[in-house]
Amino acid sequence: MRTDGRQWNELRPVTITMNANKYAEGSVLIEFGDTKVLCTASVEERVPPFMKGQGKGWITAEYSMLPRATQVRNHRESARGKLTGRTMEIQRLIGRALRSVVDLHALGERTITLDCDVLQADGGTRTTSITGAFVALALAVNKLSRTVDFAKYPITDYMASVSVGVIGERTLLDLNYDEDSKAKVDMNVVMTGSGKFVEVQGTGEEAPFSRKELDELLGAAEEGILSLIGKQREALGSMGSRIGVTTV
Amino acid sequence: MRTDGRQWNELRPVTITMNANKYAEGSVLIEFGDTKVLCTASVEERVPPFMKGQGKGWITAEYSMLPRATQVRNHRESARGKLTGRTMEIQRLIGRALRSVVDLHALGERTITLDCDVLQADGGTRTTSITGAFVALALAVNKLSRTVDFAKYPITDYMASVSVGVIGERTLLDLNYDEDSKAKVDMNVVMTGSGKFVEVQGTGEEAPFSRKELDELLGAAEEGILSLIGKQREALGSMGSRIGVTTV
Amino acid sequence: MRTDGRQWNELRPVTITMNANKYAEGSVLIEFGDTKVLCTASVEERVPPFMKGQGKGWITAEYSMLPRATQVRNHRESARGKLTGRTMEIQRLIGRALRSVVDLHALGERTITLDCDVLQADGGTRTTSITGAFVALALAVNKLSRTVDFAKYPITDYMASVSVGVIGERTLLDLNYDEDSKAKVDMNVVMTGSGKFVEVQGTGEEAPFSRKELDELLGAAEEGILSLIGKQREALGSMGSRIGVTTV
Amino acid sequence: MRTDGRQWNELRPVTITMNANKYAEGSVLIEFGDTKVLCTASVEERVPPFMKGQGKGWITAEYSMLPRATQVRNHRESARGKLTGRTMEIQRLIGRALRSVVDLHALGERTITLDCDVLQADGGTRTTSITGAFVALALAVNKLSRTVDFAKYPITDYMASVSVGVIGERTLLDLNYDEDSKAKVDMNVVMTGSGKFVEVQGTGEEAPFSRKELDELLGAAEEGILSLIGKQREALGSMGSRIGVTTV
Amino acid sequence: MRTDGRQWNELRPVTITMNANKYAEGSVLIEFGDTKVLCTASVEERVPPFMKGQGKGWITAEYSMLPRATQVRNHRESARGKLTGRTMEIQRLIGRALRSVVDLHALGERTITLDCDVLQADGGTRTTSITGAFVALALAVNKLSRTVDFAKYPITDYMASVSVGVIGERTLLDLNYDEDSKAKVDMNVVMTGSGKFVEVQGTGEEAPFSRKELDELLGAAEEGILSLIGKQREALGSMGSRIGVTTV
Amino acid sequence: MRTDGRQWNELRPVTITMNANKYAEGSVLIEFGDTKVLCTASVEERVPPFMKGQGKGWITAEYSMLPRATQVRNHRESARGKLTGRTMEIQRLIGRALRSVVDLHALGERTITLDCDVLQADGGTRTTSITGAFVALALAVNKLSRTVDFAKYPITDYMASVSVGVIGERTLLDLNYDEDSKAKVDMNVVMTGSGKFVEVQGTGEEAPFSRKELDELLGAAEEGILSLIGKQREALGSMGSRIGVTTV
Repeated sequence: MRTDGRQWNELRPVTITMNANKYAEGSVLIEFGDTKVLCTASVEERVPPFMKGQGKGWITAEYSMLPRATQVRNHRESARGKLTGRTMEIQRLIGRALRSVVDLHALGERTITLDCDVLQADGGTRTTSITGAFVALALAVNKLSRTVDFAKYPITDYMASVSVGVIGERTLLDLNYDEDSKAKVDMNVVMTGSGKFVEVQGTGEEAPFSRKELDELLGAAEEGILSLIGKQREALGSMGSRIGVTTV
Repeated sequence: MRTDGRQWNELRPVTITMNANKYAEGSVLIEFGDTKVLCTASVEERVPPFMKGQGKGWITAEYSMLPRATQVRNHRESARGKLTGRTMEIQRLIGRALRSVVDLHALGERTITLDCDVLQADGGTRTTSITGAFVALALAVNKLSRTVDFAKYPITDYMASVSVGVIGERTLLDLNYDEDSKAKVDMNVVMTGSGKFVEVQGTGEEAPFSRKELDELLGAAEEGILSLIGKQREALGSMGSRIGVTTV
Repeated sequence: MRTDGRQWNELRPVTITMNANKYAEGSVLIEFGDTKVLCTASVEERVPPFMKGQGKGWITAEYSMLPRATQVRNHRESARGKLTGRTMEIQRLIGRALRSVVDLHALGERTITLDCDVLQADGGTRTTSITGAFVALALAVNKLSRTVDFAKYPITDYMASVSVGVIGERTLLDLNYDEDSKAKVDMNVVMTGSGKFVEVQGTGEEAPFSRKELDELLGAAEEGILSLIGKQREALGSMGSRIGVTTV
Repeated sequence: MRTDGRQWNELRPVTITMNANKYAEGSVLIEFGDTKVLCTASVEERVPPFMKGQGKGWITAEYSMLPRATQVRNHRESARGKLTGRTMEIQRLIGRALRSVVDLHALGERTITLDCDVLQADGGTRTTSITGAFVALALAVNKLSRTVDFAKYPITDYMASVSVGVIGERTLLDLNYDEDSKAKVDMNVVMTGSGKFVEVQGTGEEAPFSRKELDELLGAAEEGILSLIGKQREALGSMGSRIGVTTV
Repeated sequence: MRTDGRQWNELRPVTITMNANKYAEGSVLIEFGDTKVLCTASVEERVPPFMKGQGKGWITAEYSMLPRATQVRNHRESARGKLTGRTMEIQRLIGRALRSVVDLHALGERTITLDCDVLQADGGTRTTSITGAFVALALAVNKLSRTVDFAKYPITDYMASVSVGVIGERTLLDLNYDEDSKAKVDMNVVMTGSGKFVEVQGTGEEAPFSRKELDELLGAAEEGILSLIGKQREALGSMGSRIGVTTV
Repeated sequence: MRTDGRQWNELRPVTITMNANKYAEGSVLIEFGDTKVLCTASVEERVPPFMKGQGKGWITAEYSMLPRATQVRNHRESARGKLTGRTMEIQRLIGRALRSVVDLHALGERTITLDCDVLQADGGTRTTSITGAFVALALAVNKLSRTVDFAKYPITDYMASVSVGVIGERTLLDLNYDEDSKAKVDMNVVMTGSGKFVEVQGTGEEAPFSRKELDELLGAAEEGILSLIGKQREALGSMGSRIGVTTV
């Protein structure tokens, strides 16, 4: 039994509040237990310089934690004058994950920026961000689709992410902060609605892990992600009906 | 009649959600209409180097807007690598305003940092921040008072802030973004519960203003601030009962 | 009686040395007592990117103190790698104040940059800078007017600035450093030749101030500024004759 | 058959030149084909501030590419004034991987910094760096062991790293730059001498991958890493004899 | 004949205004023709961390040009966020030159910082700065000597600097900006009162120079520097009487 | 006799390894004893913005030391976020020196960037860099000449550089680190194949030097440089045959 009463393979309560920001083309406030992330999708009708003239769009992400999202207040990166390696790593991951389910040619020469701002952090901020950013992106593309006649719908599949880890001998799904700090193996998995891997990032800094442990971790993650994608489908309803539909 | 139907001297609906963050010693989500600011107060049992050994505490503030708090997405200051002049000016103002109602000797050698993060901006973000930060500060000091035996209560008075401006010939209270961008005179006023000025900042970049206009602006601000302080008193209830009480 | 023998409503000796730099389109060395600021106006025949194609000009200002302008040497901002909040706040104020008396359409698509470099600081560096920068600007526009046929003269009024403050119960005009560090209320006022306010910035960090105190401060400031504008008129002589003249 | 004639599961020629730098406590020049990395280990008899007083040591890594390590010259990060996200991600990975096979308590209060400078890049710079840095670290600890009487030898196991990927339907081991840019799935694996995983990082930005593909990739990586560890053992000879030996 | 009517081996008019700043321990405004530099010497009773505990003092220099010191306005280095290579090179040169005539042991554990701020530039700003900074330093050490009982006087010799160059076939002394931009060879020489070289920096970027040209340049520089040292002696009068005196 | 057994006017063993990098248009690994510098020349078919449209090319240089090139590890400049003054000074010197033997009009609108990365430092890194960069440049221009029909060959002369210094009363050629740190006078000389000076930089920080000492230093440098140019000629062989040839 876990400190918060969950089974080893049980997600924390997941809440997705749609349209949490009145200006953004798509936005959600997503909660995995006490981890709360505000995700906004901003659409611009241009691409960054390195993408110009290729007839393709671009998806990028930025991630940040409010200073008191955590138990002890952190310095603001804006005051430090630079991003930490952790932030860079996470926002690169979010952008890469989202691009894996977007057909950039179908999107056309426009950029969608996903901002993931962690209001409160209790473990799993990167997986919560990816899962929420997907919904914000879907809202923005759905909104775009009212004025843009997409020959092919740009979002090719659902996608969500969860963390798994090993504490002692136990595999656990969706670690909170307390569990995360005790885990000897820590893994983040991103998977599509069709059950394929987008990212697998496993780290055994405290102790290397065996192939058997890896297999158990992947199994638990798969189950958790399918459940999260169910929540996304429910939240999007008919707005998600064209995702992955390839024929017009 | 204003675009949102308000009278010239009418505040926008004000909401103060207490304890909006589970880690901070004090926190509120404050809303002036569509302007939403998350204010957290973080207590540390030490003072910055330049204050050491004086037997006094310190109050400081940081201010930031999420990139999509606004109609058009802004670059993150953390990605730009430096704070804008506007941000610096606002956070200096918030800190100064709060210090004016705190007895730093009574507080003792500790620092309280107020983080004001604008989730959504529709004008008046600095006045909303000051008004909300005061409540977060009051919550944090109230929490401190359960373990620290203050000879004198460190908060000496209530304090709130509002904007006023002139559009055409009309004085208006609590401008939203649309009004703010049309105003020829723009003023931010910070005032205490006892009706004294902490800050008066009036700017006539578009057109200089007369003494008569200044007097009308100050009058409208005073009325608005007293109303805001009423909301603060209501939100704090008995937790605010020792504010300004000098005898033990 | 003040430490330097002045009356409460008496300015320090004011000196304006014209053309203090041989390259700048306009320049003065201005002194308010021991506060000495070199102000240069640089004209460029283009506007910043965000102003392009609007048929308007731009006025901007930069402010800096030499490291040993003060009693104790300060670190250079160029060595620190960033501007302090104080510098940003002051240079934003100077630019805003100057723009309030310039008709940017009349100026046409050109930029005038006012550099205010404090050679020696004894209080009131921002008010001295504004007062001197106005004269440097007037010199530059006067020089421009020899080659540009302005349909309307771009400078619409005189403008100067002074500080006022409260020490104990006394209102004082034009505070020197020693007085400034003792003042419980500190106010900077910028006013036009026609007696209208451009900026009113009052701060009661040490102690909030009443409406009555505010009124006294504004009265003292008004008197001081009119006297400073007299000095500006004298220094400019016939070069200032078209300021505020609206008919050709 | 691959463009350079290798079998799908064949490593490039691996060369490890010991003591490539005359000052460093440990150093190697490691080559995976045309990828050449200079790895130095620098020992300091102190730990970073956040580790002080814990009786433990610290292992950290820095990674950089010379500007013309690549086909097209890159800007120097020192001239840009900041590290790229890619650099940060890689050096965090190298440090984490090395720490997984070091007993920081056994090391004692000292820091070993591994610098991995890529002289020439032809794919796999991070896996080459990890594999080389391990040898440099082993040399430095071996040198230390001549003067320090370690109760337990600080290095607990061998460790090496290799990349694997999928091009078309083929799994390939140790991708060169040309292959890397064509791969739809890209994975870096770090493994110990006892065959346990330290890091598994798989990315399907171009196309998500199935569980079956993942299994094949892991299998190929395992084989490659065991071969690399053979090269490390050979290079270290008797200097590696105490690695992983727990009894004195 | 030169454009300003000087002989080939003639200095521009040199003016040294003593005590140009009321706070600095030593200060001068020095002019070489239209080149004007404000030099201040600031004394601190401590040394930088890398010098601690050696019983020696430190002399360092900072150099900066006001933005409109030049014909075309330059960006401020504080706004750019970093020093240019040119600035770094010049301030390293000034510091090194001054240290060559100071006995750091005799000075004791204190730091003197020389700030050289160019108010107006017409060529030779680095040589003007060195020549002026020496006088500011001498004033500061003389002031120190009233309260500190130096066993040995810390300044061991006079020192000044001048530029020389070749235009066409002519060697010229003390180049103004116009000459400097035409010179094919450009040399800065720093020399002591006893006629020894402290720095010789000759550059033939436009055209390499022969040994014969070098000899002529050095000869002209020597003559010019001795004349400048005469000006320094005159300015310092009896305040310079202990310079280079080794017996008490 | 010197610590490494050399005569006072003897160079350290010089090795030039051609084509040390497989991508660069020209590259060498150059060694002056234990000082090892990797020099690459990168050709781009465009010039920096400030050179556009002048029909001329540009030569520029960047210099860096690997963190453990030295006895004690140095911080990376990329991690510090800025270049040191020393680095800026050296890379400006290298670029200037190379430009003095290149006819930029003959080169045409292209940029050649010389990267000098010090792998191991034992004194004289700047002179080693200049000498090696010249050869890398010659290789790149020679390669260019196979596809570009130069009316005039862009390299006008050979060029090399060496350090000289005074220890005690002895003039020494090509100082190693140990000698460099003891020298009271330190001079770097850059000279062309025709025996003319490109740069003479002598510093007597520890003790000023006489004209006689200067003459001896220049004599020793001249001899050393001619010997280094001999090594360059040998390394380049027929690839250097058009250097300085003005007729087609």
